[in-house]
Amino acid sequence: MLKKINLKEGFASFGETWSPRRAGVINGCEVKLAKLEGEFIWHQHEEEDELFLVIEGRLEMRLRDQDPIMLEAGEMLVVPRGVEHLPIAHGVAHLLMFELAQIVNTGDAGGERTVGVKELEQA
Amino acid sequence: MLKKINLKEGFASFGETWSPRRAGVINGCEVKLAKLEGEFIWHQHEEEDELFLVIEGRLEMRLRDQDPIMLEAGEMLVVPRGVEHLPIAHGVAHLLMFELAQIVNTGDAGGERTVGVKELEQA
Repeated sequence: MLKKINLKEGFASFGETWSPRRAGVINGCEVKLAKLEGEFIWHQHEEEDELFLVIEGRLEMRLRDQDPIMLEAGEMLVVPRGVEHLPIAHGVAHLLMFELAQIVNTGDAGGERTVGVKELEQA
Repeated sequence: MLKKINLKEGFASFGETWSPRRAGVINGCEVKLAKLEGEFIWHQHEEEDELFLVIEGRLEMRLRDQDPIMLEAGEMLVVPRGVEHLPIAHGVAHLLMFELAQIVNTGDAGGERTVGVKELEQA
């Protein structure tokens, strides 16, 4: 049976930052809800494009070859594979992300910020 | 150079209903903005899953084997491949959709409602 996901309820269902929740699978891609806070690490994904859509808050995306892009609620950015990026959330930002399933959050950088994706627990 | 997309501006850039605009490509999938109004047609996609996220307005999704699902702004639904569905927008609904590139909007039904996707014209 199909069930809709209410984004507000989805984000209310978890508090952890930098720990994305899988909300659906579409053609081998995953849609994830994530709460970000503060600075992540510079990294890139060799084989995967990523979409970031800000639902609440502000996300700054730093890039090596251009000025940072500030994403407000209702704004999105596709970061293509091979483009190094550093996400910085100003306060806590609520993000909807589309990524290839099995992507590693820290890309080529690895290290202690690497986490797996958890299932979103629906009401 | 990467450029963000503001959803409000994106939707303001076109008026046509049932004529999706491509806003980005992520791992062979496309993210599209679409304005829907009224009833579409019953159809299914044999090989493609679809994600519908309502940005503004209301979208009713009728399904053969369960009660209709009413999507309000901030709510999303994944319709897996092979599941017949009938989207009905109440008024004009603004949708963000995530689909496999080259999907045919009318799926197995075909007919006069079939259209190609256009590029979103960014400001």
